[in-house]
Amino acid sequence: MPSEFDPPSGTRDFLAAEFGRRERAFDVLRTVFARYGFEPLQTPAFERVDVLLGKYGDEADTLVFKILRRGEHEASGEADLALRYDMTVPLARVAAAHGAALPTPYKRYVMGPVWRADRPGRGRFREFTQCDIDTLGSASPLADAEVLCTHHDAMLALGLTDFTILLNSRQVLTGLLEVFAVPPELGPGTLTSLDKLDKLSPADVVAELTGRGIDQQKAGELVTAMTADDATDRIRLALKRSETGMAGIDDVDRLLTLVSGQIPAERIAFSPRMVRGLSYYTGPIWELAAAGVPGSIGGGGRYDQLIAQLGGPDVPATGSSLGIERILSLLPGEAAVAGGSVDVAVTVLSDELAAPSFALAGQARAAGLRASVYLGSSGKIGKQLRWAADLGARWCLLYGSAEREAGTVTVRDLRTATQEAVPVDAVGEYLASRAAAADV
Amino acid sequence: MPSEFDPPSGTRDFLAAEFGRRERAFDVLRTVFARYGFEPLQTPAFERVDVLLGKYGDEADTLVFKILRRGEHEASGEADLALRYDMTVPLARVAAAHGAALPTPYKRYVMGPVWRADRPGRGRFREFTQCDIDTLGSASPLADAEVLCTHHDAMLALGLTDFTILLNSRQVLTGLLEVFAVPPELGPGTLTSLDKLDKLSPADVVAELTGRGIDQQKAGELVTAMTADDATDRIRLALKRSETGMAGIDDVDRLLTLVSGQIPAERIAFSPRMVRGLSYYTGPIWELAAAGVPGSIGGGGRYDQLIAQLGGPDVPATGSSLGIERILSLLPGEAAVAGGSVDVAVTVLSDELAAPSFALAGQARAAGLRASVYLGSSGKIGKQLRWAADLGARWCLLYGSAEREAGTVTVRDLRTATQEAVPVDAVGEYLASRAAAADV
Repeated sequence: MPSEFDPPSGTRDFLAAEFGRRERAFDVLRTVFARYGFEPLQTPAFERVDVLLGKYGDEADTLVFKILRRGEHEASGEADLALRYDMTVPLARVAAAHGAALPTPYKRYVMGPVWRADRPGRGRFREFTQCDIDTLGSASPLADAEVLCTHHDAMLALGLTDFTILLNSRQVLTGLLEVFAVPPELGPGTLTSLDKLDKLSPADVVAELTGRGIDQQKAGELVTAMTADDATDRIRLALKRSETGMAGIDDVDRLLTLVSGQIPAERIAFSPRMVRGLSYYTGPIWELAAAGVPGSIGGGGRYDQLIAQLGGPDVPATGSSLGIERILSLLPGEAAVAGGSVDVAVTVLSDELAAPSFALAGQARAAGLRASVYLGSSGKIGKQLRWAADLGARWCLLYGSAEREAGTVTVRDLRTATQEAVPVDAVGEYLASRAAAADV
Repeated sequence: MPSEFDPPSGTRDFLAAEFGRRERAFDVLRTVFARYGFEPLQTPAFERVDVLLGKYGDEADTLVFKILRRGEHEASGEADLALRYDMTVPLARVAAAHGAALPTPYKRYVMGPVWRADRPGRGRFREFTQCDIDTLGSASPLADAEVLCTHHDAMLALGLTDFTILLNSRQVLTGLLEVFAVPPELGPGTLTSLDKLDKLSPADVVAELTGRGIDQQKAGELVTAMTADDATDRIRLALKRSETGMAGIDDVDRLLTLVSGQIPAERIAFSPRMVRGLSYYTGPIWELAAAGVPGSIGGGGRYDQLIAQLGGPDVPATGSSLGIERILSLLPGEAAVAGGSVDVAVTVLSDELAAPSFALAGQARAAGLRASVYLGSSGKIGKQLRWAADLGARWCLLYGSAEREAGTVTVRDLRTATQEAVPVDAVGEYLASRAAAADV
């Protein structure tokens, strides 16, 4: 039951363990992106409303979080700003604003929250991390190949190997519609129906196509060609009758050749049925599919006109997005946290020993260890040892009146349940050498 | 002149160099915070409007960015969500929501954007990074000492040494008002005026106090006591007449003792004139001041009632905030970027050599280097070498028809302007060993 203290619907609080799990994955991705020469970009959480709205159609606009004008204008009920809905509109604005300061081509990655007022559900959030790589300013198929290999390597670096890349091309789809004589005005709807061949039976898709106004025989042929065991060969053959289709096949084959040294053949395949929903793609398109996960876990393609349409400069572009929230759900959960939040827990056995105990924690930190001093009010040693164990500390320091007299600290190893008296001045050095040995 | 492509007023785009500079500083801070056992927390960008508003007074409320309701409710002009204004209100909500899942005490750090509709100005932004550490659930002065030492170490870790910590206590200020017989209702105003002794002359502050209704002679005595060369001694003496004041002095002295081993005496001092503006502090308070920077670059204190007032559990608390945007401005700018965005630039000397050239970049990456392939349309070697140099690459790979025939790659070292022919299959290994040598 949601309580008044829960975060807003569709958003999450990330406490330390989950935060750490996410950040480690993000670090892995950043390293891969940098290895390919993609550089980071960070834009504001919000954009002016006119920059953001009207770019992705009316439905998307209803999902944008709009920010009320402030001060005397608040009462107008109008919005002048809106939270970013994706990372592409800000990219187009940045390309327009900072064009001269950006390298050519501009290869950038971005990882950060976007906000959409979708109905929240399992794995669907209103605030979620978007992870994109894009190359602006290159029409070369090498740019597409680089983006594909980057995402392939990113998955491997995360430890995921059971995935495939479905490759297609906008021209292949256009050619298909041409060869099967689908009237242009029925093209987009036809592609949408074909995209459902993963979920619906061939007969259902034929019915849907017929309902859209496609001749029943043509619809049957089209669906048969797409679902036959030798569908790929059939499509390749059929497309010989279309110049656009053949160009698409050439694009696909070229890309397959380029990546062949870096993406194993069993992990990427020409998939003529794969239709990316978004109409702005102009060349090769791809999707990442993971075993056992419905839908895609990433995808992208070439979109040579979009940046200009979004208000940016007229540059060719290609890019890809990882469905990072889905991917995170595929990664193993936090196995028993290695180490705790500190290495060294320092007890405080009386008020008058607080200062020297605090100094001991300082010594441990100066030796490069993570250390916490007991901040509670109990003087009971048993309670403080439990606190140290709960923290996951490896060592617990005890400094009572006996130790003060002897000029030593009792260092207890919580893993081996052994302890040793160490001269006060040497405790940093002692802990550093123990920690170094523990690493080995 | 602002263009339509600039980010919204008071916000910034961070391109690669500045992003990197900021992230390196944040990494340094995260390391220090972790060394003290503070754990990370991340909360959503927005909270429900009722969680956020009415917590910091009417003025703060006008600075909150409010989010319009969506769908059919959008026309109402009402807001149901608002961007977080600080990190303390979300902390109180998290403590209420996740109390049982949090360690006791709960020591957390947070680093992330907050949004305030302030008038933007030099160094003042509407979207800026807030960096807080707080300990909930400990009334121990050790918790205050830990927070102080953490921020002290954080400054040093960033390379900043020319700063001081001004230490005071809410009880000292209360005692002062008592000793100088300031009527309770004039207390807050009096403290506000005393806080201006850094900017205004003593006479001006006396005038301001008199204007507030303080007896002129008392006002004179108070200001003299606060500004005399031996102000600290005078205040200590005067406070002997107030029980609260003496308790405050004890708090200050105890804290000075606790941190004495870790913060050099010349960097921290009892500063009875220092008044933190916010009325919620209940014990020790402090501010960080840097040479040549007006105002503070950080500060905090104990606030034992605030978390409950904000809707959280009734727990004692202490915390501190670093003015990270100001601190970043004190750090050196990006000195000539060490290394560029890639280590290895791979030319593409003809279309038919695209695939093997792309594979060479893959070899370099597999060897752990950052590598980019030429994505432009020029086949001219001079242009491609300029591209490689602009990228800041250390090595440029050339693979033309002569190299193909010989089965080698020409590896040019752009720093030494020398080159070598390396067998195609050995180029990864070759680059890895060169890179390892370059590190030495």
